[in-house]
Amino acid sequence: MPNDLNQLARTDLAAYMEQVGKNARTASHALARATADEKNNALSAIAYAIIAGKANIRSANIRDVERATAEGRDAAFIDRLTLNDAAIIGMAEGLRDVAKLPDPVGEETERITRPSGIKLSRMRVPLGVVGIIYESRPNVTADAAALCLKSGNACILRGGSEALETNRAIARRVHAGLDQAGLPPTAVQVVDVADRAAVGHLITLCEYVDVIVPRGGKSLIERISNEARIPVIKHLDGICHVYVDDTADLDMAERIVDNAKTQRYGTCNTAETLLVARGVAEAFLPRITRIFSAKKVEMRCDTQAKAILDAVGIASVAATPEDFDTEYLAPIISIAVVAGLDAAMAHIAAHGSQHTDAIITTDPTKAERFLREVDSASVMVNASTRFADGFEYGLGAEIGISTDKLHARGPVGLEGLTSQKWIVRGSGEVRS
Amino acid sequence: MPNDLNQLARTDLAAYMEQVGKNARTASHALARATADEKNNALSAIAYAIIAGKANIRSANIRDVERATAEGRDAAFIDRLTLNDAAIIGMAEGLRDVAKLPDPVGEETERITRPSGIKLSRMRVPLGVVGIIYESRPNVTADAAALCLKSGNACILRGGSEALETNRAIARRVHAGLDQAGLPPTAVQVVDVADRAAVGHLITLCEYVDVIVPRGGKSLIERISNEARIPVIKHLDGICHVYVDDTADLDMAERIVDNAKTQRYGTCNTAETLLVARGVAEAFLPRITRIFSAKKVEMRCDTQAKAILDAVGIASVAATPEDFDTEYLAPIISIAVVAGLDAAMAHIAAHGSQHTDAIITTDPTKAERFLREVDSASVMVNASTRFADGFEYGLGAEIGISTDKLHARGPVGLEGLTSQKWIVRGSGEVRS
Repeated sequence: MPNDLNQLARTDLAAYMEQVGKNARTASHALARATADEKNNALSAIAYAIIAGKANIRSANIRDVERATAEGRDAAFIDRLTLNDAAIIGMAEGLRDVAKLPDPVGEETERITRPSGIKLSRMRVPLGVVGIIYESRPNVTADAAALCLKSGNACILRGGSEALETNRAIARRVHAGLDQAGLPPTAVQVVDVADRAAVGHLITLCEYVDVIVPRGGKSLIERISNEARIPVIKHLDGICHVYVDDTADLDMAERIVDNAKTQRYGTCNTAETLLVARGVAEAFLPRITRIFSAKKVEMRCDTQAKAILDAVGIASVAATPEDFDTEYLAPIISIAVVAGLDAAMAHIAAHGSQHTDAIITTDPTKAERFLREVDSASVMVNASTRFADGFEYGLGAEIGISTDKLHARGPVGLEGLTSQKWIVRGSGEVRS
Repeated sequence: MPNDLNQLARTDLAAYMEQVGKNARTASHALARATADEKNNALSAIAYAIIAGKANIRSANIRDVERATAEGRDAAFIDRLTLNDAAIIGMAEGLRDVAKLPDPVGEETERITRPSGIKLSRMRVPLGVVGIIYESRPNVTADAAALCLKSGNACILRGGSEALETNRAIARRVHAGLDQAGLPPTAVQVVDVADRAAVGHLITLCEYVDVIVPRGGKSLIERISNEARIPVIKHLDGICHVYVDDTADLDMAERIVDNAKTQRYGTCNTAETLLVARGVAEAFLPRITRIFSAKKVEMRCDTQAKAILDAVGIASVAATPEDFDTEYLAPIISIAVVAGLDAAMAHIAAHGSQHTDAIITTDPTKAERFLREVDSASVMVNASTRFADGFEYGLGAEIGISTDKLHARGPVGLEGLTSQKWIVRGSGEVRS
C-alpha cells in the first residue's frame, strides 16, 4: 500500500475507502483486458510467493491468534482464525486449481445473424469490482482473490479485524505475484484498517463497487443486505429439507437422510428438516431415528412423528412451530409427517429458505413435479443436499452461495462473477 | 377485483397493497406450473377479448383523455395516453406474437454427470412476481402482462393514475382471458387506486414481489431505485456514443451516424455524442454536419470540432462540459474530436451510461478491442446504436432495457424474467 494511502487510513476513513474504490475501478480496466495467460501467471506467482513466504504468514497468524486468545475468544473462533502449514499450502493449491479453470472472460455464445444483417452474440465480461466481506477465516483472502482475478475483476477484501496481520501478510504475497505477472497490485486490495465502520463505507461505494459478497454469519449478512446500496450476492439461511415420499426406496432414503443431516452439521447445505409421507412414516421413522439416536442427533418432532417414535421407544422432543423455521447448524433435526407430495411442497414453500431441497422417490412423475415446482436454488431427486456446493457442481471453487433469484443462484463460481453483454457486428447496417 | 378488495383499496392502502401482493404470490405458484398450452391459450383468449371489447376500451380511454385534457396536460402527454383503434388492435397482435414465442420455462440445459454420479443440469424457472410501474402509455398494460404470463410470472401493474379507466378496461379483458384458459385472474392485477403512495408500498413488498421493472422518465426510475427494497431492472440514461475511427469507411460512418442520431430522437438507444478520430475529423465532420444542419440538429462541439466546422462555415455552438453527460432525447448532438481509440474508450468510460456504444472502423483489431473493453450493455461495430432493442435482437418483445450488470443486461425479454435453478438427479448418491 502506498504511504499516502496508509496515512489516509489513519486519518480519514471515508477518504481512504473512496481512494481504495477508485484504485479498484482503475485496476479493473487492466484486469478486464488481461489475457488468460497473464491472469494464470499471476495466480501461479501468488501461489509461489505464498509458499515462499509461509514462515512469515505463519508468524503474522500467530500474532493474530495470540491477540484473539488474550481477548478471550472461544475455541471455535481461534480454530477458524488459525492458519497452520497445511492450510497455507492449501491456499497455494487452491490458487493453482483456479489457474487451471477455463477463462470465462471473452467467451462468445449464442451467435446469430438477424434479418437486418447484424451479427448478434453475447460476450462474457467481468462485473468490474467485487467487494468481499468476511469474518475470521483468513484463507478467504487468497481464495476470493483468486476467483476475482481469474474472472477479470478487481476486488476489495475486508476480512475480520482479528485477522488483520495474517491478511496483510497474505496480501503482500498477492501483490508480489500480481506485480510479477505485470498486473496492477491494486487489483487486489485488503482494507487495512481495524475500524468496523470501513464496511459501511464499502457497501455504499456505488460508483466504484459493482457487487458485494458477504461471507459469514447471518447477522453480518443481514446487516450488509439492509444497508448496502450495491447488489449483494448472499444467502441468509440454509433451511434444507429432505422429503421421503411414500414411493421411496427406504434403504436409499435412510442413506441419504443420514448423510444430508450428519455428514457435517455446520454447513448451509445440511438438512435441517425431514418430511416423511404418512404412508411410509411408520416403516421409515424408526429406522432413520435409530441412526440419529446413535449419533446423538436431537429430534424435534411434530405430533404424528412423535407418536410413532414414542410407540417404538425412541426418545424425541416435541417441536415448537419455530423449529421448522430454524437453521440449527448443529446435531438437531426437526421431523414432520406429511400427507404426501403436495403437503411436502407446501411445507417447503412456507418454511424453506430456497437453498436446497430434496425428494426421495421412485415415482418419476412426482420427481419431476418436485424439481419443477420447488422454488429453491438447488432441487434434488434421490441425492443428498450436501452436494449443493461449487466443487461438487464442478465450478472449480465457489465465492459463495446465493438464495436470491436474480443473477447467480446456488453455488456461485467464476460465472457468477461475470455478466454477458450484447455484441453487434455489422457491415454498415442502419435501422429503417 | 373482488368487492372486499375493492373496498380495502378505498380505506387502507397498505392493507390493500399487501393483499394484492399475497394474491400475486399465490397466483405465481399456479403460473409456474402452467403448461405452454395453457399460457398460450390465455394469451389468445386475452387478444380475442381485447378485440371484442374494443369499443368499451375506447370509451374508457376517451374518458381518461378528456380528464387529462381538462387538467391541461400537454399534447405529448395526451398523445401517449390516447389509444385509438389501431393501437388496440396492435395490443392484441402483440399478445398473439408473444404466444408464438418459445416457452422459456422448464428448459433444461448444461446437463452433465459429475464424478460423484449425480446428474446435474440447470432449469429455467419464473422469477415469481414482477411489479411493473409505468407512466401514461396504457398499451403497456397488455404488453407487460403478456410477457409476464408467458414467462410464468404473476404480475402487479401500476400504470399512471391518468390512465386508470383505460387500464381497468384492459384488465377486465385480461382477466376474462385468464379465466377462460383456467388460470387465476389474480395472475395479472392492476393496482386500482389513484393514490401515488401505492408505488411506495409496491416497491417494498419484499415478501411478495421478486423484481420491479419501472418504465418511464428518469426521475420516476431514480426515485424507485432509491426507495425499492426489491431488485429493480432499469436503465436511467441512454447516453450512447458513436466513435468514428481514423480507419472508418466514411460513407458507412455517415450513414450510421445519421441513422443513430436522427432516425428517432426520443429513444434511449439514440446516439447523443459523436466522437471522431483526429485523423479523419477534417474529412468527416463537414460531411456529417451538413446532414445534421439540413435536419435542424443542433451541434454542441468541443474546441477542435468547432474550429473545423467554423472553417467550413457550418453553424454550431460550443459544448459545455455538461453536454457530454446529457441524454438530449431531442435533435441535439454533442461532438468531440479525440486522438484515437484509447481516447474514445476513455471518453465513453467517463461520460457514457453503459447503454449502447458503437465504433465505425475497418480495423478488426480495433473493433475487437472496442467490443471487449467498452463496458456497456450493447457494444457494436459498424452498426447503428438504434439496433439495441428487444425486437431487433429477436427477443420477440422487451419488458425494458437494463444498464445494470447483474442478471439481465441490455434489452430484457422473456429470459430476463426467469432465472435458472440447479437440478440434481441422483440414484442414491451421498457425499463422502
